[in-house]
Amino acid sequence: MSPGPRSRLDVLRANGRPRLMDYVGAEQDRIVATLFEWLRVPSISADPAHAPDVRRCAELTASLMSDAGLEHVELIETPGAPAVYGDWLHAGARAPTALVYGHHDVQPVDPLSLWQTPPFDPEIRGGECFARGAIDDKGQVLYEIEAVRGLLRGEGSLPMNARFLVEGEEEVGSPHFEELLRADRDRLSCDVVVVSDTGMVSPDVPSTTVGMRGLVAFTVRLRSARADLHSGMFGGAVPNAALVAARLAGALTDTDGRVTLAGFYDDVRPLGPVEAASLAAVPFDERAWMESAGVTTLTGERGHTVLEQVGTRPTAEVVGITSGYGGAGMKTIVPATAEVKIAFRLVPDQHPDPVAGMFGRWVDGHVPPGVTYEIEREGGVSPALTPTDHPAVGALSRVIERIWGTAPLYTREGGSGPEEALGRVLGAPVLFLGVGLPDDRIHAPNERMVMDQFWLGLLAAGELWHELAAAATGEAT
Amino acid sequence: MSPGPRSRLDVLRANGRPRLMDYVGAEQDRIVATLFEWLRVPSISADPAHAPDVRRCAELTASLMSDAGLEHVELIETPGAPAVYGDWLHAGARAPTALVYGHHDVQPVDPLSLWQTPPFDPEIRGGECFARGAIDDKGQVLYEIEAVRGLLRGEGSLPMNARFLVEGEEEVGSPHFEELLRADRDRLSCDVVVVSDTGMVSPDVPSTTVGMRGLVAFTVRLRSARADLHSGMFGGAVPNAALVAARLAGALTDTDGRVTLAGFYDDVRPLGPVEAASLAAVPFDERAWMESAGVTTLTGERGHTVLEQVGTRPTAEVVGITSGYGGAGMKTIVPATAEVKIAFRLVPDQHPDPVAGMFGRWVDGHVPPGVTYEIEREGGVSPALTPTDHPAVGALSRVIERIWGTAPLYTREGGSGPEEALGRVLGAPVLFLGVGLPDDRIHAPNERMVMDQFWLGLLAAGELWHELAAAATGEAT
Repeated sequence: MSPGPRSRLDVLRANGRPRLMDYVGAEQDRIVATLFEWLRVPSISADPAHAPDVRRCAELTASLMSDAGLEHVELIETPGAPAVYGDWLHAGARAPTALVYGHHDVQPVDPLSLWQTPPFDPEIRGGECFARGAIDDKGQVLYEIEAVRGLLRGEGSLPMNARFLVEGEEEVGSPHFEELLRADRDRLSCDVVVVSDTGMVSPDVPSTTVGMRGLVAFTVRLRSARADLHSGMFGGAVPNAALVAARLAGALTDTDGRVTLAGFYDDVRPLGPVEAASLAAVPFDERAWMESAGVTTLTGERGHTVLEQVGTRPTAEVVGITSGYGGAGMKTIVPATAEVKIAFRLVPDQHPDPVAGMFGRWVDGHVPPGVTYEIEREGGVSPALTPTDHPAVGALSRVIERIWGTAPLYTREGGSGPEEALGRVLGAPVLFLGVGLPDDRIHAPNERMVMDQFWLGLLAAGELWHELAAAATGEAT
Repeated sequence: MSPGPRSRLDVLRANGRPRLMDYVGAEQDRIVATLFEWLRVPSISADPAHAPDVRRCAELTASLMSDAGLEHVELIETPGAPAVYGDWLHAGARAPTALVYGHHDVQPVDPLSLWQTPPFDPEIRGGECFARGAIDDKGQVLYEIEAVRGLLRGEGSLPMNARFLVEGEEEVGSPHFEELLRADRDRLSCDVVVVSDTGMVSPDVPSTTVGMRGLVAFTVRLRSARADLHSGMFGGAVPNAALVAARLAGALTDTDGRVTLAGFYDDVRPLGPVEAASLAAVPFDERAWMESAGVTTLTGERGHTVLEQVGTRPTAEVVGITSGYGGAGMKTIVPATAEVKIAFRLVPDQHPDPVAGMFGRWVDGHVPPGVTYEIEREGGVSPALTPTDHPAVGALSRVIERIWGTAPLYTREGGSGPEEALGRVLGAPVLFLGVGLPDDRIHAPNERMVMDQFWLGLLAAGELWHELAAAATGEAT
């Protein structure tokens, strides 16, 4: 179960003994088999061809939740992929309620050729589980489900009420999630939200996320002529959609790496002192980070550190650009159409709607006469921020210190999720218990989960139910 | 045979009577059937799946040439598709020799859905023949073959020696053609080259091409990281290959529409007075031209007319740009790779090799540190120019005036072909007898040939043998 002679798991086994230690010891083979079964379902929400797989994945998720002892398990239908709900509500009317959030859908897998083993044929090598969805997010949802299963099998009850909500459209920007939250607000009511879809600095420097960036993205489709034109007959006199697209995308940031949309930075809130101190304390090895990214240079907004750039600053990225001929050799054409995909990461207090307005004005100002365009907005998630002085954050910090041996730093996650909507619609603070590591290659080929982190996550999730219950009643555990 | 009551063909039938008038009248049904048989062969040289069709097309070409009375007919093999050779060399040792050049391969047909009738099921509607290859170039090669057939049947001989060379790789940039010319230079020796693969302004404003643009193209492959990166975890701090590609492509021309490669215009020879006057005399309906192009605006090099831009000026076009995610919806990545395809049209005295050097330096100056690139060159054709005062151009001009009723203007063709290599390797002037019209939609869906132009081309080709022979001996015909 642990590769090294003196892993953190060994320490906990000898010392401390979290309440699910024996459960993990007894059930690990079955848990790994369950993980593999789940990872084998190619639940790629971005690809309509995989819609049946996403549904099959939702059904498997439901059966895992039922097997764990959750009740009222059912699929919640949306106009897209189904979410899965389940609860355990026998802690008493006065006991607090936590809602655990995760997602059962995964990112696309292309380019397939870069995977060392097939993305939906999970394999453990050197203590790491390789598969699409291993860490994002099936592995992290599974340790939450297994923690409930372990507590219910071992103790017969949970110290507080539990709800699970595992959605199926997170990787496409959760387009129907807020609507679902609003429609089901009563059933989903809770005192705290626990999200396991994030990471930490390293096993030696545990951390918890207190903020996530928001996200809004757009596809811009350009047309410069009725059809592609012969470059010999027309080239030199007619507009070229590829050139227009290139100039549009190329204008996204200025020479200081700042986004050029007018007003883009107006709503960015400066970092508070606790967070600033925590961020400054995060050990950061620039060389190692560049190596993990596979880059040989750093770019980005001038005047900000890498950790600020990827966590606390808003960004704009060209996600894709496609125009003209992309096959072997050459075609002598002037392309008539082009498509540019651009995604923005947002930080407090930016929001998708105002940024969409700015983007529309920016595109309009950059497309020359005679070229038509249309903009399609792809979802939109506001940034999330949990106050570091909230009692529930204190409870989570104590659990992390107990399991990983060190008090966590507070960090921001550069990624985006529906956490802001969860917190806002349900009126509850959002906690992030995440065991991902910077090298996990989420959204990329050879995604992995470090198995030791998975087991520590399971132990931490078990502790957290008790710590949160105690924090709510003012007891110490 | 002619749709209007008083077509140019009617005028010629009543008046002038070119020497193949009776041949055309007697043979037109068989000639149309032959044309259709040839057009039914999908000889798409760009698609390896069609290689057997291109070979079958070469064999049919050979049989048409043999049937016409050409001798020594054979396929000339290349590392790609075969060319077809044939000759008739009985005009005497002191008689001059003309080599007729054309090609039997055709462009791809996608998007197939835009064709009104299937591209390889030729049909004549309203005096126009619709099929892939109708005008580019099977129709134009056929009137050359039929002219020889008509003269040999009618007169028993040609007034000069004839060679035909019909290649099978023109639509993929003639990659093996110069090698073929060099290897077979003795057999191909000639005093003049006649190319029928171009067009004229209109039947009322006949013209002959005296120049064609050259062509050299490049694929630039960029890499900014080992693999695509998660835009939440890395976005904002790492280089983005799509952004770099966009900026590279976007920098290709400046705000005056001039190509930004250092030294690019140094070798451009100013237009001579005869050509400048001819070009200025070409009637040009900007609205109609824009309508035929399907554009609502004109761009290009400032200070030059559209006809200059597409004929006598060098250009650079982004042929394709591909990076990141191009599917439905969105992927939250920072793309690690990008590909940009750029094609240059060259005019005298530019050449592919120096432009390739300039392009390499330009790319190197535009790719930022930390991003690697490689450049792949795709072929290269120098521009061709035939002096307007050459006696053979005079002979061709007299023939065009006789058949179309008006002395031709001298124009440049914006496209590129192997004509420069023909002229250079064989040491002969290149004449362009072409009957294509601006609306023929070459390389596009619904390619057509106006049948009246075909018959006039056949009559003109028959006259040209005598006019060239007379010009060589100083006689008048």
